[in-house]
Amino acid sequence: MDNKVLIFGHQSPDTDSITSAIVMENLERKLGNENAKAVSLGHINKETKFVLDYLGIEEPEVIERIEDNQEVILVDHNEATQSVENIANAKILKVVDHHTMSFIAPYQLYYRAEPVGCTQTVLYKMYKEYGVEVDKKIGTLMLSAIASDTLVLKSPTTTAEDIKVVKELEAITGVDINTYGVDMLKAGTDISEYTPEQVINIDSKLFEQANKKFKIAQVNTADLDSIFKNQSYFEQAINEDIEKEKLDFYVFAATDIVNSNSKIISLGNDSPVVEKAFGISMDNHTAMLENVVSRKKQILPPILDMLK
Amino acid sequence: MDNKVLIFGHQSPDTDSITSAIVMENLERKLGNENAKAVSLGHINKETKFVLDYLGIEEPEVIERIEDNQEVILVDHNEATQSVENIANAKILKVVDHHTMSFIAPYQLYYRAEPVGCTQTVLYKMYKEYGVEVDKKIGTLMLSAIASDTLVLKSPTTTAEDIKVVKELEAITGVDINTYGVDMLKAGTDISEYTPEQVINIDSKLFEQANKKFKIAQVNTADLDSIFKNQSYFEQAINEDIEKEKLDFYVFAATDIVNSNSKIISLGNDSPVVEKAFGISMDNHTAMLENVVSRKKQILPPILDMLK
Repeated sequence: MDNKVLIFGHQSPDTDSITSAIVMENLERKLGNENAKAVSLGHINKETKFVLDYLGIEEPEVIERIEDNQEVILVDHNEATQSVENIANAKILKVVDHHTMSFIAPYQLYYRAEPVGCTQTVLYKMYKEYGVEVDKKIGTLMLSAIASDTLVLKSPTTTAEDIKVVKELEAITGVDINTYGVDMLKAGTDISEYTPEQVINIDSKLFEQANKKFKIAQVNTADLDSIFKNQSYFEQAINEDIEKEKLDFYVFAATDIVNSNSKIISLGNDSPVVEKAFGISMDNHTAMLENVVSRKKQILPPILDMLK
Repeated sequence: MDNKVLIFGHQSPDTDSITSAIVMENLERKLGNENAKAVSLGHINKETKFVLDYLGIEEPEVIERIEDNQEVILVDHNEATQSVENIANAKILKVVDHHTMSFIAPYQLYYRAEPVGCTQTVLYKMYKEYGVEVDKKIGTLMLSAIASDTLVLKSPTTTAEDIKVVKELEAITGVDINTYGVDMLKAGTDISEYTPEQVINIDSKLFEQANKKFKIAQVNTADLDSIFKNQSYFEQAINEDIEKEKLDFYVFAATDIVNSNSKIISLGNDSPVVEKAFGISMDNHTAMLENVVSRKKQILPPILDMLK
C-alpha cells in the first residue's frame, strides 16, 4: 500500500475512530487526494456495525502494521502507544483529533485538534471550511460518532460546539439523535457472542505515566447484572492481559447508559492507586462510581493526578 | 496578569512571532475573549520595528516568566525549550504554529498547525473560517510576517498556500510584497548599533536531539563582509553562550538576502557534526553554504539527520 495514504483511528476502534477515518477519506478525495484510504486497527464493534449496516457501508480493511515511510493520516488519536505498529517510522501527514496530546514529529505537518467531545465535530468544521458538502451519509456517520462519544450528549465531555453541530446534522440528515442514538448505543451493548477477552478489548486504551503502565477498558451496557454475573471470567481475562502487557494495573469500567453510572473492576499490583484516586474501597475488586460515564473526563484524570 | 490570556511567540522573537501574537489577540477579542493580551519573550528586532513603526503599533510588553496556571496561547512555536520560563506549569489553551512538533499536554486544547511557510498563513485561514474581517492593518501584519519568514517568497520554505494568501493580502492592503518586503528585510539587516552578543541573539533557536544541545542563530544581511570583518568578536560571544548554556555546538548563519547564500560560523566540541552534515570542511570555523537561506528546511534537517 505504498502509494496509498492510510487513514486510521486508534486500536480497539470505536465508532468515532472508524467513522472519522471514512469521513476523512471522503474529504481528502474531494480535495484531490485520490490515494486516501480509510483502514482500521481492529474489527468493528457491534455499535459501529449498527451504524455501517444502517448506511450500507463496508467495514474498512483491518491492518496490523505499516511499512517504513508509509504516509498516514491519524484521526481520533495522536499517541504512538494507541496507534499502529511501526508508527515511529511512518510519515504522518495530518492529525485530526480531540484528545490530550503527546506528539513528536521532526517535520512539519497538518495538525488540528479541538477541545470538543468528538473528532467528527472537528471534521464537520473542516468540511465547512473547505466548502465540501456534508451529504446524508457523511452527516449520519458524523452524528453517529458524536452520539457514541457523548452518550447522546449526556456525557460531561459534551461541549456547546458538539450540540451546535448535532443540530445542524439533524437538519441535514433528518435523523433524530435521541431515537437513533439510543438504538445505536443499545446495539453496542450486546456482548452475548463475545468472549470475556473480546469484551475487555472492545474499547481499551493503554496509558503510561510516571513509569506506570495501565489500561482503562470501557464497555457500555443497559444491564450491569448481566456483566457482573460473569465477573470471574472477566478477572481472568484482565489478569492474563496484565501479565502479557506487563501492566501495573487495569481498570475495567462497565458503564450503565440508562442510569449514567459505571461499575468498575480494578486489578494489578498498583490497584490501590485507583482506590486512592476515587477515594473508595474496592469490594471484591469492584466499586460503583456514581454519575461517572466518561473515561476521558472522569476516570483518567483522577488516576493521572494520583500518579503525579 | 492572572485574569489575562497571554499570547506570545518564541524567544528571540522574529517578525512572525510578534505579529502573530498581535493578530491572534485581535482574533480572540473579535470572538469574545476580552482578556486576550499579546506579549513577547524579548524586545523586537529592527525588522519588526520597521513593521510596527509603519503601522503605528506599539511594541508588545516583554515578559520573562509566567505564574503557575497562567492561561496562555502559543503562536509560532510549540516546544517548551523555545517558550517562556515556567511554561510547564501553564494552562495552554491554544497553539497556532507551522513548525515541527514536540508537544505534550495532559488536557484537551485547540491545536492548529499547518505545513506552510509562516504562522500568519494559518491565521489568515482562521480569520476566514470564523468570518472575522482582515483589515488593512491586520493584513499588513500578516503580509510582513510572510515576507519575513519566506524572504519575500524566495525561501524553499514557501508553499503554494503562502503565495495564494499573499496575493489576497496584497489586494486587501494595497501593499506590494516585493517593494515593501525588501525594504523591511533591509531594515532588519542594520546591526550597526548591536553588540556581537545582541547580533547572535536576534534570531537564535535552541535544539536538543540525541542528548546533544545546540543552537542555530541566523541573521539576515545585504553585506556579508561587514559581518565577517568582526568574526573574532562574534566567536567570542558564541563561545560565551556555549559555556553558559552548556551547548555541544553552535551554528551562526549570516544569510545574504540579495544573493541567497549563507556563510556560517560553527563552534563547540561537536562542531564536526556540522561539517559532516553538510559535507564541508570548515576554514577558520567558517564555510559558505550556497543557495542555503532556510534554517528550518536547509540547515536544521541535515544536522538532525547526522545526530540520529
